[in-house]
Amino acid sequence: MSRVFRLVISCPDQVGIVAKVASFIADQGGSIVEANHHTETMDQWFFMRHEILASSLNNDLEGFKEKFTPIAEEFNMQWQVFDSAKPKRIALFASKESHCLADLLYRWHEKDLPGEVACVIANHDDLRSMVEWYQVPFHHVPVTPETKPEAFAKSEELAAKYEADVIVLARYMQILPPNMCRDYAGKVINIHHSFLPSFVGAKPYHQAYERGVKLIGATCHYVTEELDAGPIIEQEVIRVNHSQDIEDLKRLGRDVEKITLSRGLRYHLEDRVLIHGNKTVVFAP
Amino acid sequence: MSRVFRLVISCPDQVGIVAKVASFIADQGGSIVEANHHTETMDQWFFMRHEILASSLNNDLEGFKEKFTPIAEEFNMQWQVFDSAKPKRIALFASKESHCLADLLYRWHEKDLPGEVACVIANHDDLRSMVEWYQVPFHHVPVTPETKPEAFAKSEELAAKYEADVIVLARYMQILPPNMCRDYAGKVINIHHSFLPSFVGAKPYHQAYERGVKLIGATCHYVTEELDAGPIIEQEVIRVNHSQDIEDLKRLGRDVEKITLSRGLRYHLEDRVLIHGNKTVVFAP
Amino acid sequence: MSRVFRLVISCPDQVGIVAKVASFIADQGGSIVEANHHTETMDQWFFMRHEILASSLNNDLEGFKEKFTPIAEEFNMQWQVFDSAKPKRIALFASKESHCLADLLYRWHEKDLPGEVACVIANHDDLRSMVEWYQVPFHHVPVTPETKPEAFAKSEELAAKYEADVIVLARYMQILPPNMCRDYAGKVINIHHSFLPSFVGAKPYHQAYERGVKLIGATCHYVTEELDAGPIIEQEVIRVNHSQDIEDLKRLGRDVEKITLSRGLRYHLEDRVLIHGNKTVVFAP
Amino acid sequence: MSRVFRLVISCPDQVGIVAKVASFIADQGGSIVEANHHTETMDQWFFMRHEILASSLNNDLEGFKEKFTPIAEEFNMQWQVFDSAKPKRIALFASKESHCLADLLYRWHEKDLPGEVACVIANHDDLRSMVEWYQVPFHHVPVTPETKPEAFAKSEELAAKYEADVIVLARYMQILPPNMCRDYAGKVINIHHSFLPSFVGAKPYHQAYERGVKLIGATCHYVTEELDAGPIIEQEVIRVNHSQDIEDLKRLGRDVEKITLSRGLRYHLEDRVLIHGNKTVVFAP
Repeated sequence: MSRVFRLVISCPDQVGIVAKVASFIADQGGSIVEANHHTETMDQWFFMRHEILASSLNNDLEGFKEKFTPIAEEFNMQWQVFDSAKPKRIALFASKESHCLADLLYRWHEKDLPGEVACVIANHDDLRSMVEWYQVPFHHVPVTPETKPEAFAKSEELAAKYEADVIVLARYMQILPPNMCRDYAGKVINIHHSFLPSFVGAKPYHQAYERGVKLIGATCHYVTEELDAGPIIEQEVIRVNHSQDIEDLKRLGRDVEKITLSRGLRYHLEDRVLIHGNKTVVFAP
Repeated sequence: MSRVFRLVISCPDQVGIVAKVASFIADQGGSIVEANHHTETMDQWFFMRHEILASSLNNDLEGFKEKFTPIAEEFNMQWQVFDSAKPKRIALFASKESHCLADLLYRWHEKDLPGEVACVIANHDDLRSMVEWYQVPFHHVPVTPETKPEAFAKSEELAAKYEADVIVLARYMQILPPNMCRDYAGKVINIHHSFLPSFVGAKPYHQAYERGVKLIGATCHYVTEELDAGPIIEQEVIRVNHSQDIEDLKRLGRDVEKITLSRGLRYHLEDRVLIHGNKTVVFAP
Repeated sequence: MSRVFRLVISCPDQVGIVAKVASFIADQGGSIVEANHHTETMDQWFFMRHEILASSLNNDLEGFKEKFTPIAEEFNMQWQVFDSAKPKRIALFASKESHCLADLLYRWHEKDLPGEVACVIANHDDLRSMVEWYQVPFHHVPVTPETKPEAFAKSEELAAKYEADVIVLARYMQILPPNMCRDYAGKVINIHHSFLPSFVGAKPYHQAYERGVKLIGATCHYVTEELDAGPIIEQEVIRVNHSQDIEDLKRLGRDVEKITLSRGLRYHLEDRVLIHGNKTVVFAP
Repeated sequence: MSRVFRLVISCPDQVGIVAKVASFIADQGGSIVEANHHTETMDQWFFMRHEILASSLNNDLEGFKEKFTPIAEEFNMQWQVFDSAKPKRIALFASKESHCLADLLYRWHEKDLPGEVACVIANHDDLRSMVEWYQVPFHHVPVTPETKPEAFAKSEELAAKYEADVIVLARYMQILPPNMCRDYAGKVINIHHSFLPSFVGAKPYHQAYERGVKLIGATCHYVTEELDAGPIIEQEVIRVNHSQDIEDLKRLGRDVEKITLSRGLRYHLEDRVLIHGNKTVVFAP
């Protein structure tokens, strides 16, 4: 993978944005590896993402940003430039269930996840040995009804200490407090074990079993203050039938959860997800 | 397709049911083409379906039923025997949208639907020409807020006149009155254009678009008095993304609706669906 | 759907193409509705497609083309501009099996196919009534071993007479002669009833059954002189199991064929498919 | 999971088999948890699988078998009874690529695989640390062109020493010698990284890329002397497009391979797969 800069933009739509941005990139000598556009016609909002070969540019990241600033101001852009050489740092929050955590650790270990696993914070100590085999720092921060505020403060502190760019709730099974949702707005990713908006809240597989659905699913989404209602990044389903009981649904669901979370997280780590209100634009390959 | 009898049974589970039924069938000379069992462990309920080659039996349907009755009584069975030579008669209820109706008519015309389309009852006259090309009786029964009771009475009367065994709401867009739900309990099949229980009620594609889901779906279910809450027969989904607006969702959804309805209806027509509480056991191939 | 011009380009990759094209479009006042790029890194070839709102341009199609020509020449582009107000004309070639033909006719009738069905040419007369209900000209051109050259010449003549931009082999079951493949290079679309390259040639469902595959599929591809070996536009599969015999595979396959062909054809009609050697770049939504 | 006996039968079809077997089970007091039948109409062959609650039987495994033998002989059955309390022992063969191995070890560790991982035999030493974390014996048996016969003899000896019931080639990348294929007929499971019969042999992702397919797949099958041509147990696919290069196909394919292998292996471990000629009957839930 060659080093790239990822220029991610959203702004009110108008004629000439693409030309302006593309001309700027060309003026910098930039070789475009991938480009995506989208216009949300409902509210005339424009979204754009470029991957530019870093070696082709006649400027470093700071120079590039400085030169781009006037254009960004002209078009009222929300914008960022990310450097693939500085992968995002991930704090994994876990509980007792290991499947999502193990999957992400494995992918990272195999250099299959475009980010850095910085630490694991778990409210149970069960998964320590697995995490430590991967030589990832493991912190056991128990959460009890009495210690919730301290526990979350401690967890957030740890995330900050490890300079986490993104928090992944890998079946963490705890509801984050509102202030943490705000502090990490657009930076906390959860995997919910249902096809949202079906089966919000607790025990979604029990709910699915009760309702007799013929497909079960998983949803990877950003965490907001409202439970299981944040912007959806990715969803996937798998077929089930009457012969499968709740334990079977859980087992089948684990595979769907792993796939959905790792795919959604990959999109986030590659700066492919642009949040727009309570929805996302995902420039997937 | 050889003529078969379909023996469909549900009853409290106990040891020896399979042996008793299989021995009975063997005693009748019956060659079993397909057999399915299921035990609902939650409430110890047993479900069973056999396809038996009619030509292999040393009795006709009535004789078969008469001989089987004592066994059925011994095990407290709910049971039925269907003859594939007497395909179920279908009353198709439609409105203005043609995709589900056209799909079912086409399949029936191609001998690809194991049932008989007996008539089409529509609350608009738009689809008459299409239906009449298939030489199927078309009845226009308008439904207005004022005439609802009469319209539904008329529709039910027509269904009875055509000896309909099953009513299919092929995007009928009307809520059946409670008495009709009861009269045709387990015999009215609807296609809802969402992945239930998400997006109950009106304009599910709008709801899906608003929520920003990454898959849209359709649900084929039996109609009960509670809106969009009856036993689910079949579901299917298709992937969508941010670039698709509501019109695109509708277009993509039409294909999913057609597939889901025709598949669910086929299961019903082949007596593969056993209703159990608000869920179904579907002995799909 | 607003009227758009579709500018489709492929050329050797180099820095500055996007900027040049985007600036040109902006200079014409063009509002970009959709844009897609791709670089084939293997051979450094660049592909690009823009949808531009026609009403936003200060030139008509001819003016737009004339002004763009110098840029095209500078970058050695293969390029075309298509006007959505001039939908492609389709000649449907059919035989006896109706499912693909019926599906395309229905979609077209419902304004769900972004093209014009110009005529149906069939080597059997069986489907005449269905076609004529749609008020589409139907031509019966029998193909026998002795009359092959004349029959194909006649068919090609008819396609020309109806000004067909694209020929769709909707289960035509005949192998086009080499000259016709060349005359309509990149303009004949076939649906093959297997997941190519598995099961080339005759009776693919029989081959699939013999091999015991667990998924069957269909492939929409451009026709070239080598049988079933042309550039693939779209593929889809469906799950099967041991309980399904060849007739079941055919029945299930029909749905997959219809979906795959209509989706692939839609991509072609919207100028989303760029042929590159024996492969395609498909700028699907 | 309650302990069950799995009675698996195949024999020439005739009337009365089901009755005979079901009556026998009932006479033993057996409570049937799951039952599946299939008749291969082509050659009139019958397949049957029962799961019987062990605690319900008035005999142990040996007694059950002894009593059943006369029935088996009467109907010329090939048959076996498996005890879920004696899970099959698995020898995992690996090379350098870890994804399938890691996935199976993880599932086994989480008690999510209904078998016992007995040992890992690898022709490279790279994966030792991962395997040993799971406390599974790891044997490095290098395979070079010169040492092939000795290496395979050694590997087969190890498999025997660990009393392996099944050998799983978890991306082993070596072709087993014919004698080993015969010794373990129906007991060696391979994962091939393509949708067979497409792309037999080496570098299937390169072949898929070259052909420009729109879905890539994986195939779990029994190993026979003919390369990649044994009976297929399970297949799965995932969608790709022009923007994905060979490395992307490999990455996406890894997930499909893991899922397909673990699912196929599960079917084998639960005695759901009956080989019939070069095909399988898979009584999947």
